[in-house]
Amino acid sequence: MKNLLDKIKRAVRISLTGKIDPFLKGEDKLHIKKVIRKCVLAKGGEISSRARAIELGETYLNLNENGRKRFMKILSWEYDIDHKQIEAIIDKYKAADNAEERIKAEMELSTALIPPRVKLLKQFISLPDGFKFLVDFRGDLLRMKDDPHLVKLDADLKNILSSWFDIGLLDLQEITWGSSASLLEKLMKYEAVHEIRSWTDLKNRLDSDRRCFAFFHNKMPNEPLIFVEVALVNEISDNIRKLLDEEAVTIKPENADTAVFYSISNAQKGLEGIHLGNFLIKRVVTELSKKLKNLKHFVTLSPVPGFRRWVEPLILLEGEGLLKPSEMMSLKSVIKKRNIPKGLLRLLDTEWHLNPALAKALKPVLMRLCADYLVNARKGTRALDPVANFHLRNGARIERINWLADTSAKGLEQSAGMMVNYYYKLSEIEKNHEYYISESRINISKDTRKLLS
Amino acid sequence: MKNLLDKIKRAVRISLTGKIDPFLKGEDKLHIKKVIRKCVLAKGGEISSRARAIELGETYLNLNENGRKRFMKILSWEYDIDHKQIEAIIDKYKAADNAEERIKAEMELSTALIPPRVKLLKQFISLPDGFKFLVDFRGDLLRMKDDPHLVKLDADLKNILSSWFDIGLLDLQEITWGSSASLLEKLMKYEAVHEIRSWTDLKNRLDSDRRCFAFFHNKMPNEPLIFVEVALVNEISDNIRKLLDEEAVTIKPENADTAVFYSISNAQKGLEGIHLGNFLIKRVVTELSKKLKNLKHFVTLSPVPGFRRWVEPLILLEGEGLLKPSEMMSLKSVIKKRNIPKGLLRLLDTEWHLNPALAKALKPVLMRLCADYLVNARKGTRALDPVANFHLRNGARIERINWLADTSAKGLEQSAGMMVNYYYKLSEIEKNHEYYISESRINISKDTRKLLS
Amino acid sequence: MKNLLDKIKRAVRISLTGKIDPFLKGEDKLHIKKVIRKCVLAKGGEISSRARAIELGETYLNLNENGRKRFMKILSWEYDIDHKQIEAIIDKYKAADNAEERIKAEMELSTALIPPRVKLLKQFISLPDGFKFLVDFRGDLLRMKDDPHLVKLDADLKNILSSWFDIGLLDLQEITWGSSASLLEKLMKYEAVHEIRSWTDLKNRLDSDRRCFAFFHNKMPNEPLIFVEVALVNEISDNIRKLLDEEAVTIKPENADTAVFYSISNAQKGLEGIHLGNFLIKRVVTELSKKLKNLKHFVTLSPVPGFRRWVEPLILLEGEGLLKPSEMMSLKSVIKKRNIPKGLLRLLDTEWHLNPALAKALKPVLMRLCADYLVNARKGTRALDPVANFHLRNGARIERINWLADTSAKGLEQSAGMMVNYYYKLSEIEKNHEYYISESRINISKDTRKLLS
Amino acid sequence: MKNLLDKIKRAVRISLTGKIDPFLKGEDKLHIKKVIRKCVLAKGGEISSRARAIELGETYLNLNENGRKRFMKILSWEYDIDHKQIEAIIDKYKAADNAEERIKAEMELSTALIPPRVKLLKQFISLPDGFKFLVDFRGDLLRMKDDPHLVKLDADLKNILSSWFDIGLLDLQEITWGSSASLLEKLMKYEAVHEIRSWTDLKNRLDSDRRCFAFFHNKMPNEPLIFVEVALVNEISDNIRKLLDEEAVTIKPENADTAVFYSISNAQKGLEGIHLGNFLIKRVVTELSKKLKNLKHFVTLSPVPGFRRWVEPLILLEGEGLLKPSEMMSLKSVIKKRNIPKGLLRLLDTEWHLNPALAKALKPVLMRLCADYLVNARKGTRALDPVANFHLRNGARIERINWLADTSAKGLEQSAGMMVNYYYKLSEIEKNHEYYISESRINISKDTRKLLS
Repeated sequence: MKNLLDKIKRAVRISLTGKIDPFLKGEDKLHIKKVIRKCVLAKGGEISSRARAIELGETYLNLNENGRKRFMKILSWEYDIDHKQIEAIIDKYKAADNAEERIKAEMELSTALIPPRVKLLKQFISLPDGFKFLVDFRGDLLRMKDDPHLVKLDADLKNILSSWFDIGLLDLQEITWGSSASLLEKLMKYEAVHEIRSWTDLKNRLDSDRRCFAFFHNKMPNEPLIFVEVALVNEISDNIRKLLDEEAVTIKPENADTAVFYSISNAQKGLEGIHLGNFLIKRVVTELSKKLKNLKHFVTLSPVPGFRRWVEPLILLEGEGLLKPSEMMSLKSVIKKRNIPKGLLRLLDTEWHLNPALAKALKPVLMRLCADYLVNARKGTRALDPVANFHLRNGARIERINWLADTSAKGLEQSAGMMVNYYYKLSEIEKNHEYYISESRINISKDTRKLLS
Repeated sequence: MKNLLDKIKRAVRISLTGKIDPFLKGEDKLHIKKVIRKCVLAKGGEISSRARAIELGETYLNLNENGRKRFMKILSWEYDIDHKQIEAIIDKYKAADNAEERIKAEMELSTALIPPRVKLLKQFISLPDGFKFLVDFRGDLLRMKDDPHLVKLDADLKNILSSWFDIGLLDLQEITWGSSASLLEKLMKYEAVHEIRSWTDLKNRLDSDRRCFAFFHNKMPNEPLIFVEVALVNEISDNIRKLLDEEAVTIKPENADTAVFYSISNAQKGLEGIHLGNFLIKRVVTELSKKLKNLKHFVTLSPVPGFRRWVEPLILLEGEGLLKPSEMMSLKSVIKKRNIPKGLLRLLDTEWHLNPALAKALKPVLMRLCADYLVNARKGTRALDPVANFHLRNGARIERINWLADTSAKGLEQSAGMMVNYYYKLSEIEKNHEYYISESRINISKDTRKLLS
Repeated sequence: MKNLLDKIKRAVRISLTGKIDPFLKGEDKLHIKKVIRKCVLAKGGEISSRARAIELGETYLNLNENGRKRFMKILSWEYDIDHKQIEAIIDKYKAADNAEERIKAEMELSTALIPPRVKLLKQFISLPDGFKFLVDFRGDLLRMKDDPHLVKLDADLKNILSSWFDIGLLDLQEITWGSSASLLEKLMKYEAVHEIRSWTDLKNRLDSDRRCFAFFHNKMPNEPLIFVEVALVNEISDNIRKLLDEEAVTIKPENADTAVFYSISNAQKGLEGIHLGNFLIKRVVTELSKKLKNLKHFVTLSPVPGFRRWVEPLILLEGEGLLKPSEMMSLKSVIKKRNIPKGLLRLLDTEWHLNPALAKALKPVLMRLCADYLVNARKGTRALDPVANFHLRNGARIERINWLADTSAKGLEQSAGMMVNYYYKLSEIEKNHEYYISESRINISKDTRKLLS
Repeated sequence: MKNLLDKIKRAVRISLTGKIDPFLKGEDKLHIKKVIRKCVLAKGGEISSRARAIELGETYLNLNENGRKRFMKILSWEYDIDHKQIEAIIDKYKAADNAEERIKAEMELSTALIPPRVKLLKQFISLPDGFKFLVDFRGDLLRMKDDPHLVKLDADLKNILSSWFDIGLLDLQEITWGSSASLLEKLMKYEAVHEIRSWTDLKNRLDSDRRCFAFFHNKMPNEPLIFVEVALVNEISDNIRKLLDEEAVTIKPENADTAVFYSISNAQKGLEGIHLGNFLIKRVVTELSKKLKNLKHFVTLSPVPGFRRWVEPLILLEGEGLLKPSEMMSLKSVIKKRNIPKGLLRLLDTEWHLNPALAKALKPVLMRLCADYLVNARKGTRALDPVANFHLRNGARIERINWLADTSAKGLEQSAGMMVNYYYKLSEIEKNHEYYISESRINISKDTRKLLS
C-alpha cells in the first residue's frame, strides 16, 4: 500500500501540471480495486479491514479531481447491489406459500438491498478526522453529480450521513469573541448570506447585543455544521445595513424586546439535504427565551432571492395587464417611455434606489408583486421562493415586507432591495406547519394581506 | 398527554402491588396508539414529532413489565412493514421490462422494507439521556425475547444501535481512582467476571500497577459500554487470586514486562451482539505499548466457562474409554470406587483442590481434557467455549492452561479451577484471525500442543 | 545533592527501625546547611536558587520526625533576623534629625525585620505540589510547637500562608457523588465532626437533598481546604441521627424551606488560624439562596463541645446552690442519693438517655445550664465554647438548644447529648457581628432567653 | 454608597467635558474617606469590610485621572504607618534589658511597619476581576509617579503583587491560532517589540513553525502577563524581516535545529519591576527541548535599543580619536566632508542602508562600536543596554551581532539596523549568571571578541 501511495502522490504531482491522470496506469487502478475488495469482504477481521479503509481514504485525498471521479465510479458501478441476487430472492418470495417464508424472504431482501460499498463508506470514519472526510467526500460527489451513475452512491452516502448527523448526536454551541480564532476564521469563510468583510465586522457581529449559535458534531470539533446570527434589538428590524453598522450603538441585551435572525448558513456542502436549520432556529429561540425573559419577538430579516427571477419574465409576458391603474399612473410619472413595463424592467437594472422620486413610484408596485410572489408563486404545493419555503415549513408566518431593506448589489439584483420578516411564535409553529404542509396554505400578517388586496 | 401520564403513573403504582395492568383500560391503550401514529406520520413537523416521542418515552418509563411488553408488541405488530405494499412493488419489479424500471423498483423496495416504527425508535434519542433510553429499551426487549413477534423489532433496534455505537463514534477513556465515584460505582455493578467486593478491592484494581479502560459514547457520559481491567506484572500470571490480592506488593509500571487482561465486561445489556471487545483489547494494547515501552507480552487470564458443562456428560457417556491408561492409574490411587469415571464426576463436586494428593492425581486428566475442549470442541466451525471463541476470533493464540488458577466457587464449578492465557501479538493477529475464520484452525503454543499428544 | 539524598534515605530507613538519626552525622548536617545558605543568598540566580529549594524540599520529605525537627531548628535559629543589624538601624533612627532620614530608617527596618528564611520558605512552592508541601510543613511544625524556638518560624509561615490562601485566591466548589473517588476519600478522612462511617454513609450525605461545598486552591487541586455539609429539610432539624439516617426519605430540594449546616471541617492542619469558615458559610448561604428561592432558613446543627467540661467542676464546686428548687425536686424523683449534685454527675456518665424518666428529670436542669454556658461563660469577652464563639463571631444568633439531639458516645460525653441551632440571617449578620465584637453581647432567640430566666 | 456612586458617575461625566473635578465637593471626599476608614478597621467583620472594599473599587473605576490621583494621595498620606507608634516601640526597644524584651519589641515593630492601607489594597482582589484591578491600579500609580508622596504607596503595592504573582502561582500556556480571538487581540495590543500589523501577520506568527508562550495567573484568565514569540528555523536567524515574512516557506518543526526568541513583551504595566522574563525564557527552553529533541540552539534575535543614544554623543565628544585608521579610510571613501565624525552622524540619519557602498563602508565601524557598547558600556556593574543586561543577568552569552538585521524605522533609529543573538545554553546559565553578577564579566563568543580586538 505504501508503494501505491507513493506512486499516486508522484502521479498527482505530475497531473497537477496537467500531464498525467493517475488512473491511466492500469496497475494502480487494479491495486485500488483490490484494496476496496478486501475492505468490503473484511478479510483478516474488522480491525484489519478498517486499517485498510484508512489507507484507502488517504489515497483518495491524494487523487486529483479526475482520479477522485474514477474512484467514485468504481464504488458506484462495482460495489452496487447484486441484481441477480435480488431477482433470486424475489422469485423465492413469489414461490412462498406461507407468511413465514414470505417474511424470511423480506428479511433477506432488506439485507441484499444494501450495496456492499456501504460497508467501506462507513469504515471511512475511522480515518483521523473521519467524519469530516465523509462529509467532504460527499461534497466532492455532489460537485460531480452531472454523472447519473453517481446518484445511487450519493443516496447511500446521504443515508449514512443522515443517521450520523441526526440532531440527537449534535450539540448546540454559542460562538463568541472568546471562541478560537481558527473557528471564527471558518465562520468568515462559511457565511453565505451577508459576507463578513473583516475581523472588525466579525467582532461587531459577536458584540454584547449579538448572538451566534451553531450545531457541532462531537467527532468534528471546530467545524460548525450550520450557524445562525442573531441581533438583539428594539422593534423588528427593517434594514440589514443598519443592523450590521459597526458604528451603531450597542444596547443592553436585557433591554431588547426582539431577536432578529438575520443570517443562517450551512457550513458543510457535504450535508446538503440534511435539514438542520429548522432545529437550529427553534433551539436558539428556546435558548434565548430562557436566558432573556425580556424578548417578545423572534423574527428573521431574510432576502427574497427568487423575486426578480420570477417577476421579470412575468412583466415581459403580461405587460400592463399585470399592473393596477394606480400603479400605472405612478410609474408614468417617472418612466418617460411608451412601454411602461419594459421601462420598469430597464429601471430595475439602474441605481433607482438612490433617487427618492423613483423609489417612491416603484414602492407600491414592487411591494405588491413581492407579496404576490411570496404567497402565490408555487412549486407544486410549496412556496417557490426557497427562503420562504424554508421558514414556512418551519412554521413561521410572513410578518412584513421591508422596502429598501438591502440595497447591496446582491440585494438589488435578487430581491429588488426588499427583505422579509418571518415571525416565529413557539405556540403557533405546529399549527402553521400543518396548515402549510397539509393544506398548502400560508399564514400571513394583516399588513401583508393588505398589500395583496 | 399529561393526563395520560398521570393515569399511567397511578396505574403503575397500583400494579406494583399486583392488582392492575395499566393496559387493561382500552382508553389508555388507544391514546398510546394515537401518539405513536402521530410520531410515525410526523404530524406538525419533525420537531413536534420529536416532542411527542419524548412524551411517549417518558410514558414508557412509567410502565410496569407487563405494560412495556404490550408497548413493544404494538410497535412490533402495528408498525411493521406493509406486506401488501411489498407485494405490489415486487409485482411491478417482475413486470418491468428494462433495467431502469427494475432499478426504480429496487429503490422503492429499499424504502418500503424499513418498518415505520424505525422512525419512532430513532426519535427516542431526543429524550434526555436518549441514547441510554434506547439501549435500555433494547435491554428490556431482550429480556422478553421468548416472544417470537419481538424478534423483528429487535432486529430493527440492533440495526439502529449498531450504527450509532459504531466504533468511530466511541472514545476510549482510562478509568482511575481519580474518576467520579458515580462512575466507579457502576464499574462495581457491571463487573461480570470477577466480582468487585468492596471499594478497597476496587481501589486496589486501580492502583499504580493496574489499568482500566472503557469505551464511552459522547451522548452517554458516565456510562461505560465495555471495560477491561489490566494488571502490569512480571511474567505471565497463572492465578487470579494472587492477581487480585490487596496485600500484594505494587510494582513500578516501568518495570513490568507483561500486561494481563484479567477481566473484560460488557456493561450494557442492550448492546448485546454489537461487538466492541475486539476493538477494546487492541486499542488498549496499542495505547499501553506506546506509553510503556517495557511491556513485552499482552495476555489474558481467562476462565473456561463451558468446560465442566461439556466434559461431564462426556465422562458419563464414554466412561473409561475417555481416559488414558496412565490417567486411569493415577485416578485409581485416589478414587476407591469401582467405577472410576463416576468417581471422578463425584470428586469434581467436592473440595478436592484443598487436598494436594487429589489435586495431583486430577491434574494430568483435567489439563488434557481442557486442552481438548478448547481446541477440538466446536459449534459449527467455531470453538464451543464462548471465551475461547471471542479471543480466537480476535486473532489471539492459546498460550497456556493454568492449574488451580481460580479456586473460587464459580471457578471450580465452571472451569474445574483452570484458567487460560490467550496471547495477543499485534503482528500475528490478522493472520491468526484469517486462519481461524476461513480455515477454522487454531493457533496454539507448544506447551498446549504437548498436552494434546 | 543526589548523594546526600541517597544517604538520607538510607539513614531514614535505618532510623525507622529506631537505630539512627540521620542528623547525627555532622557531615550531612553541614551539607544541608550549605544548601540552605545557597538558597537564601540566591547564588547563581533566582532559578538556580529555586532548583536548590526543590532538592532541599525533597530531602526534607525523606527525613524522619527527629530529622525534620532539626531541620526546622536550623531555619529558626540560623536564618532569623540579624539583631545587630536591627540595633544599628535603630541607632541611625534615633540619631536622625529630620523626617526624611527617619522615613529612610523605617524602610530599612521593614526590610531587615524579614528573616532570610522567608525567602527559602517561599521558594518551596516551586516543588511539585509545592503549596501542599508548605501547608504540610506548617502542619509538622505545629505538631512540634512545644519548642519555643519554633514559634517565630511559625509566625513567618502563617504570614506567608495567610497571603497565599487569601480568600481572593480560593474557589468555592460543590462536591457531589460525581466528584472523583480520590477526593471523596479525603472527605471521609478529613471529616472532623460526625465521622463518615462508609461509602454508603458518604453517598447518603451527597444525595439530592444534601449539599457539600469546599474551598480549593488552584495550585492544590483535589485537596479541600475546608468543607461544609448541608441538609435541605423542612423545619429546622433538631437531631443529628435523624439527619444522617440512610433510610430517611429524600425530599425534593425545591420543596425544602431550611438549609442545615450540620458539619464544617478544616481539612488542612497546616492552615490552622487562617480563618476560612466564616467566608465558606456565607458564600454557601448566598449560593444556595440564588439557586433555591424556596429556602427561608439557614441554620446550623452544632455540638456544644465544651459544655460538660465546664459544667461538671461547677456542679462539684457550687453543689445544690447551682440548682433551682424545682430542679432539685425533679432530680430527687430519680436520684436516690443524699448528695444530689454528686448523683447528677455520676448519672451523666451512665446511659441515662435510654431511660425516659431519667431523661425527663434531667432535661430542665441541663437545658438551662447549657443556655447559661453558651451565653454567659466567657473567655475574656468571647464565648467560652469554641463552636459558639465561631458562629457568633460570624454574626449568627443562638436560635435553639435541642434535647437528645446527639446521643452518640461523643455527643453524650461532650455535650450531654444536646445540640444547638445557630441561625444565619444575611441582613442581620453585620449587626450581630459588631454587637458581639464591640460590645461582647450575644443575640439570642426568645426560646433560649426563656431557658435563662 | 449607591448615592455616592451615582454622584460620582455624574461628576465624572461632567468632568470629562473638562468642567468639574469630582473631588472638589468636600462632601464626597469625606464619604470616601469614611468608607476607607471602615474597610481598614474591618468594622462589621471581614466580610462586610470586603464588601465595602468592592464598592470603593467600583467608585475608583468611575473617577477621572484627577480623582484617581487624589484617591491615591488619601491612601498614601492618611493610611501610612504611625510614626509616633514606631518611635514609642523603638524607645521600648532601647530601654529593654534582656533579649526577650528586645525580641518582643522587634515583633511589634514588624507589625507596626505595615501601613494600614495594605489591608485595603489586599481586599481589592475581592472585586470581580480583582487581580486585574490591582494590577491596573498600580499601572495608574506608576503613571503618576512624578509625585514623591506616592512612592511608598507603590512600594506597598509592588510588595503585594510580588507575592501574588510569584512564579509558583503562575501557569505557562501555549498560545496558538486555536486560542480565543479575544486573547489574540490582546497579543496584538501588547506586543511591544515588533508590532503585529494585522490578523494575517498574527496568524503567520502562530504558524506550525512558530511558537508563542505566556504566563497566566489563574485569577486573571485571558490576560497574558508576559509572552514570548519563538521561530523554529534552521541556522541562527540574522534578520527580523525575513523571520516575519508571511510569504516565507514553513518548515517542519521536527526538522528545525534552532529556536529563535525574537520578541518578549511585558503585557501588564502594573507588574513593572516584577521579573518574569527570566523564568519565561527558561521554562520555554525546557518545554521545547522536551518536545522537539532536534532543537540544538536557543538564541534570541534582539534589538540594541540604547546603541545610537550612547554612540552619538561619544562620536561628537571624541571625534576622530574614536575611529581606527582603517575605519577612517573606509569612511573617507564615502563621506566627502572634512569632519568625518560629524559626517558620520549626519549619515546615520539618512537612508544609508539602501546604498550598498555606504553600508559597506559603515559596517566595520558600527559593528565594532556596537560590540564595544554591549561589552564595555556600563551602568554601575551592569551592561548599559537594557536588553543586554536582561539576557546577561539571565545567564545568556553574546553570540553574534547581525548587520542590516532590522532596517525598520525604529531599528535604524535605535540600533543603526543591527540586532544581537544572545545564546541560552542550559548547562552554562548558572555559571554565566554568577560570572556576570559577582564579577560583572560577560561571556562573549569568539566572533564578537574578534570585533573588539
